Amino acid sequence: MTEATQILAKKFGSTRLKTEMLVAPLSVEDFVVQPVPFVSPPKWHLAHSTWFFEEFILKNIEGYKIYNPEFNYLFNSYYNNVGQRIARDKRGTLTRPSVEEIMVYRRHVSESLLAAINNKKLSENDLSVLELGINHEQQHQELLLTDIKYILGSQPFDPIYGNFEEYSDEGDAVWIKLNEGVYEIGYEGSEFHFDNETNRHKSYLNDFEIRTSLVTNEEYLEFIKSGGYQDFNLWHDEGWTWLDENKITRPLYWKDNLREYYTLEGKKDIHLKAPVTHVNFFEASAYATWCGCRLPTEQEWETACEQFEWGRRWEWTASAYQPYPGYKKIEGAIGEYNGKFMVNQQVLRGGSIATAPGHSRTTYRNFFHSQYRWQYTGIRLAR
Amino acid sequence: MTEATQILAKKFGSTRLKTEMLVAPLSVEDFVVQPVPFVSPPKWHLAHSTWFFEEFILKNIEGYKIYNPEFNYLFNSYYNNVGQRIARDKRGTLTRPSVEEIMVYRRHVSESLLAAINNKKLSENDLSVLELGINHEQQHQELLLTDIKYILGSQPFDPIYGNFEEYSDEGDAVWIKLNEGVYEIGYEGSEFHFDNETNRHKSYLNDFEIRTSLVTNEEYLEFIKSGGYQDFNLWHDEGWTWLDENKITRPLYWKDNLREYYTLEGKKDIHLKAPVTHVNFFEASAYATWCGCRLPTEQEWETACEQFEWGRRWEWTASAYQPYPGYKKIEGAIGEYNGKFMVNQQVLRGGSIATAPGHSRTTYRNFFHSQYRWQYTGIRLAR
Amino acid sequence: MTEATQILAKKFGSTRLKTEMLVAPLSVEDFVVQPVPFVSPPKWHLAHSTWFFEEFILKNIEGYKIYNPEFNYLFNSYYNNVGQRIARDKRGTLTRPSVEEIMVYRRHVSESLLAAINNKKLSENDLSVLELGINHEQQHQELLLTDIKYILGSQPFDPIYGNFEEYSDEGDAVWIKLNEGVYEIGYEGSEFHFDNETNRHKSYLNDFEIRTSLVTNEEYLEFIKSGGYQDFNLWHDEGWTWLDENKITRPLYWKDNLREYYTLEGKKDIHLKAPVTHVNFFEASAYATWCGCRLPTEQEWETACEQFEWGRRWEWTASAYQPYPGYKKIEGAIGEYNGKFMVNQQVLRGGSIATAPGHSRTTYRNFFHSQYRWQYTGIRLAR
Amino acid sequence: MTEATQILAKKFGSTRLKTEMLVAPLSVEDFVVQPVPFVSPPKWHLAHSTWFFEEFILKNIEGYKIYNPEFNYLFNSYYNNVGQRIARDKRGTLTRPSVEEIMVYRRHVSESLLAAINNKKLSENDLSVLELGINHEQQHQELLLTDIKYILGSQPFDPIYGNFEEYSDEGDAVWIKLNEGVYEIGYEGSEFHFDNETNRHKSYLNDFEIRTSLVTNEEYLEFIKSGGYQDFNLWHDEGWTWLDENKITRPLYWKDNLREYYTLEGKKDIHLKAPVTHVNFFEASAYATWCGCRLPTEQEWETACEQFEWGRRWEWTASAYQPYPGYKKIEGAIGEYNGKFMVNQQVLRGGSIATAPGHSRTTYRNFFHSQYRWQYTGIRLAR
Repeated sequence: MTEATQILAKKFGSTRLKTEMLVAPLSVEDFVVQPVPFVSPPKWHLAHSTWFFEEFILKNIEGYKIYNPEFNYLFNSYYNNVGQRIARDKRGTLTRPSVEEIMVYRRHVSESLLAAINNKKLSENDLSVLELGINHEQQHQELLLTDIKYILGSQPFDPIYGNFEEYSDEGDAVWIKLNEGVYEIGYEGSEFHFDNETNRHKSYLNDFEIRTSLVTNEEYLEFIKSGGYQDFNLWHDEGWTWLDENKITRPLYWKDNLREYYTLEGKKDIHLKAPVTHVNFFEASAYATWCGCRLPTEQEWETACEQFEWGRRWEWTASAYQPYPGYKKIEGAIGEYNGKFMVNQQVLRGGSIATAPGHSRTTYRNFFHSQYRWQYTGIRLAR
Repeated sequence: MTEATQILAKKFGSTRLKTEMLVAPLSVEDFVVQPVPFVSPPKWHLAHSTWFFEEFILKNIEGYKIYNPEFNYLFNSYYNNVGQRIARDKRGTLTRPSVEEIMVYRRHVSESLLAAINNKKLSENDLSVLELGINHEQQHQELLLTDIKYILGSQPFDPIYGNFEEYSDEGDAVWIKLNEGVYEIGYEGSEFHFDNETNRHKSYLNDFEIRTSLVTNEEYLEFIKSGGYQDFNLWHDEGWTWLDENKITRPLYWKDNLREYYTLEGKKDIHLKAPVTHVNFFEASAYATWCGCRLPTEQEWETACEQFEWGRRWEWTASAYQPYPGYKKIEGAIGEYNGKFMVNQQVLRGGSIATAPGHSRTTYRNFFHSQYRWQYTGIRLAR
Repeated sequence: MTEATQILAKKFGSTRLKTEMLVAPLSVEDFVVQPVPFVSPPKWHLAHSTWFFEEFILKNIEGYKIYNPEFNYLFNSYYNNVGQRIARDKRGTLTRPSVEEIMVYRRHVSESLLAAINNKKLSENDLSVLELGINHEQQHQELLLTDIKYILGSQPFDPIYGNFEEYSDEGDAVWIKLNEGVYEIGYEGSEFHFDNETNRHKSYLNDFEIRTSLVTNEEYLEFIKSGGYQDFNLWHDEGWTWLDENKITRPLYWKDNLREYYTLEGKKDIHLKAPVTHVNFFEASAYATWCGCRLPTEQEWETACEQFEWGRRWEWTASAYQPYPGYKKIEGAIGEYNGKFMVNQQVLRGGSIATAPGHSRTTYRNFFHSQYRWQYTGIRLAR
Repeated sequence: MTEATQILAKKFGSTRLKTEMLVAPLSVEDFVVQPVPFVSPPKWHLAHSTWFFEEFILKNIEGYKIYNPEFNYLFNSYYNNVGQRIARDKRGTLTRPSVEEIMVYRRHVSESLLAAINNKKLSENDLSVLELGINHEQQHQELLLTDIKYILGSQPFDPIYGNFEEYSDEGDAVWIKLNEGVYEIGYEGSEFHFDNETNRHKSYLNDFEIRTSLVTNEEYLEFIKSGGYQDFNLWHDEGWTWLDENKITRPLYWKDNLREYYTLEGKKDIHLKAPVTHVNFFEASAYATWCGCRLPTEQEWETACEQFEWGRRWEWTASAYQPYPGYKKIEGAIGEYNGKFMVNQQVLRGGSIATAPGHSRTTYRNFFHSQYRWQYTGIRLAR
């Protein structure tokens, strides 16, 4: 076994363990529910990230017997190439298999995969899918945390998940300036990356300034208090409709009193110096418009990002999620990972406190629909 | 303590215990979900039937301290007089309080109530509400079973709940005849009964015949195979729309092959001599029309019911749920129990294998909307 | 040609003419729209009532050539036996055929039918369907008026339809009393009637009182002002949901100021002594509950109706729309006229200022769903 | 009056006349309906384009009296700064004011505006809004044609609008190649243009090829016949959902037989050499993927467009509709024209046979949501 494979095997083990540690504070009941269609039950994440390794690696290894043929229907997320699946909004109706059975399934797949690695049964392609699978599970670790926050935040009485400090000081607002010119963006190299980060390509940028700190709760409160949620001129047309139909007047998890919010550590006073969080693209844009700025494009972000700290919040960009020049979808099921979502979503850059350490990078392109707020999202300004 | 009170106290204890025995076979996960709005999570039933005793009896007893003031919001079902409540279709989002905490709540209320009885703190009115509460909990025992069947029946793999024989032979079809005349129906007496069973009143009936056995699966299969679900002339207009939009071709829980169905004992061969079950009012009416008969009115049913055995299935009647002559709603929250539902529902008579023994009686009026099928419903013919 | 046939032919002619006079005040634009699914475009009524004669009579007459084979799809209302048809809520998308073309179609069918009568081509059965068709067209005359009121009432500026005095004095409230006993209700005789009025049968009634005048606007205003629309204890559960979701605080067509309403003669001051109008079953029931009364059953109504004047408003009864004892649906398409609607609707008795003179009778059973308000409905009290 | 003003006045007159000529073939009924929310009734377009001149110019001119103060509510489209308005999907409920009254309103506003020009009452800013208003009315001319096609195409019997040849030969497929480098795009100059076309800015493009002819019906038929609508790998995830839910198997207006389609000249044989039309962004992308190509970005399109003929179909680009660098929304109501729509839509370039001659230009940015097909859209390939 090469050293690279050894490292990968170790990373596989630690990632699997990390996932299980994340759900340790939950009661069995917490694992099951789906309060809204876009939130999946924690037990579904546990099973789906396991199924990924079984479906895309173990299944192809001689002698491996599928653990339970029905799981493909239950734990496939959106891979049309892999067959029919339960409707996304019905995941919360599944009480069986139980959390315990899913844990057994996890262990079975983890052990089978480690055995396969040790017995050198994995091809080069298998190893690259293994690395993809590890990164995939890391993405679900973040979704687990944000879905858990949504589930617990939907309970009365603001239950505590555990120690998970979400907020820290942003410090002073400093602007840095970049000059116009041709810049290169996109991934180039031989480390793991997603297909949507390629091809590396040239992009022409105008002069721009970008702020080193994120917008804080204090700043955002000023926006609220000055009537930001009532002034349609600040909003996209679709954002105004969203706000109006849902009677939105503040970020997700903020209490009515504008003094407290729900966190994974329970209800807390709003930390004024911390980055405003759980805002969607519409809110981020409206805030930027209100203060005479704008959101950065993803090209600007990537060009400037070495000059500021990032990784506390996923930062909404002004860029729609679209393919880079020369982008090609991979053949088959793995090709469904990214490419088919490249319409009607916005790119977010950076990472968040819920992102697995080392998972993100400067070329990483996260993406969500403009109305969603349950990720640890934030606002960086440009002008 | 009077003997009547002693009997009531004992019945209270055994009813509470029975409820807990009904949920004993469940996994914790099964307690939480709400696959469709009309099915409540089992843990909600456990808490709601407990809350009923606390809200309507204990709360008024000097010195009793509400267990948790937030539970009123969570476990009130539909009593507007008792304040705001969680939306019915959101019951399945609640993971907290946990099943275990609800069991503790149950024990607390049960013990407090028994103590109050022993200490003679219950007024005459309290005792009558206690009896209502016991009957209320019995109704929720039946809902528990039918909701559990729906939840488990929504899982892949047809999980087994436990020993619960649903089906038995109906025997031969025999018709009995009653002559026209004035009959009395409705409750009269001093035993427990619901307000909707009164006043006892005269009703004029024409000559009619009624069958002693329920329609069997074998008979219903013939209806299916002869194209009953494709012949719009057999159906109410709303029934045809329901069937068409939901692509209905057989009773709930029947498998595609028309040879098996899901039961609380798992998947089984359809028992041909057993009563057809899990049909709604539209299906019951269409079947009756198909074989040249009709459903009995509730007046006919009550008049004839001493001449046949009933209690295996709730029997759809041709009667809409409406007040009897002289019916008066009780003042206050308890008045919301029955009266406000007297529109757009159909009366069912009898009882089912899921009904608590001794709970029903010949004057008992059950009621459901015409499209629902998840109760143990069946078909009795008249002509 | 018999005298009876001559009378029928004359009635046919005058009914057809009356329909056309009803739409004379409309602009072409008014003929086309469908503001809500339950309101049909006036031109649809003109064509559908014509299609009825063509489909059920002319089509069977030797030598008659269908005017336009596509019209069956466009102008069939709900007769499954007669084939596919345009979805009800899409009637308002049809601009073609034009109003003028439909008028030509009307004349063609009217003339063809009169020629067929004169040439003695109509069988006995055809003549009975002709009489049904005339009554059918009269029903659509009433729907035309109420749909026109809805369409014009949806416009800004309260346009005037023409002279159509809707309101008159109810006079004083007088109660009459009937004694308990067996009464006969339902149609018996040889004149035209609908199948739902038969069989005539005995019914046992308790002592009851019924008011000779309808509830007035003045009385209903008192209900509103005393908080009737805010007191859930007065309402059916479904009524309270309807009121809450639609933010209802007053009858249809009443202005915000509770001093004016829209009528076919334009905006007018509310006539205090006139019968309250455009209330649904929920409102009628809530009002009756509020003043310590109830709605009469249809049996009570029919038994008492000779002792009061009726015909100004359709009067909501406490009775659900269900078949009379011995009721049999007619075979074929005509059988779809009444029977398939006998579930989840309420019976209204009497008639209204929009009903064709001579159309209704004491045994006539009108029926609508409990939430609808756009007919000329009113409230008669019983106790 | 300057020569520029004279030219503008003349253009105003001819544009107003052109609009009225476009609706000349309609029956009154055709003016009223709204078969789907995104299609407006023709009479609404006539009134709205008139209201625009009244609201944004005439209203500010001394002595001008608003024609009817209620029209602001009825004919405002989406300008929040100008007050409340009728819900978009309720435009088809308005029968009043009539078509004739709207024509009178048109003439009144046209004459008032021409008089104001002649009397030199228009400021420089007014004149610039006048030019915007003319371009605005031209946009509504195109919408009128596409909405009329949708309305007439929703009728049975494929009615003929009139002479309007939609299809012509595309000729052979030729590819042209552009070299990578920095290119300038966006409007620069002093002629009329929309704010979304600015600022002119540099953009870096890679080598690319683009086809001079649009994809033809013949080519698209091959895509259909080879199973393009059944192969999920060709589609965006949202496109596949759209296709699946709406059971889409061919472009809008194509008949089931894949040999005919509906045109404004009635039903016709599909012209194989003509550009495929009435496809949405999902279909355009899927087709491009199927043949190993892609859609051009709007930067590529603008850079290359002088080398091919454009203007027969609006061409879907791979670019989401987003602001150009330095874009600033105008203050006030006019600022709502473009900027607030810059999310979740795709840019289309070029123009169509329904576009007013001279209206479009090489920098023109049209935009629609990815699911819409009722414009004259087509497909240009890049690679």
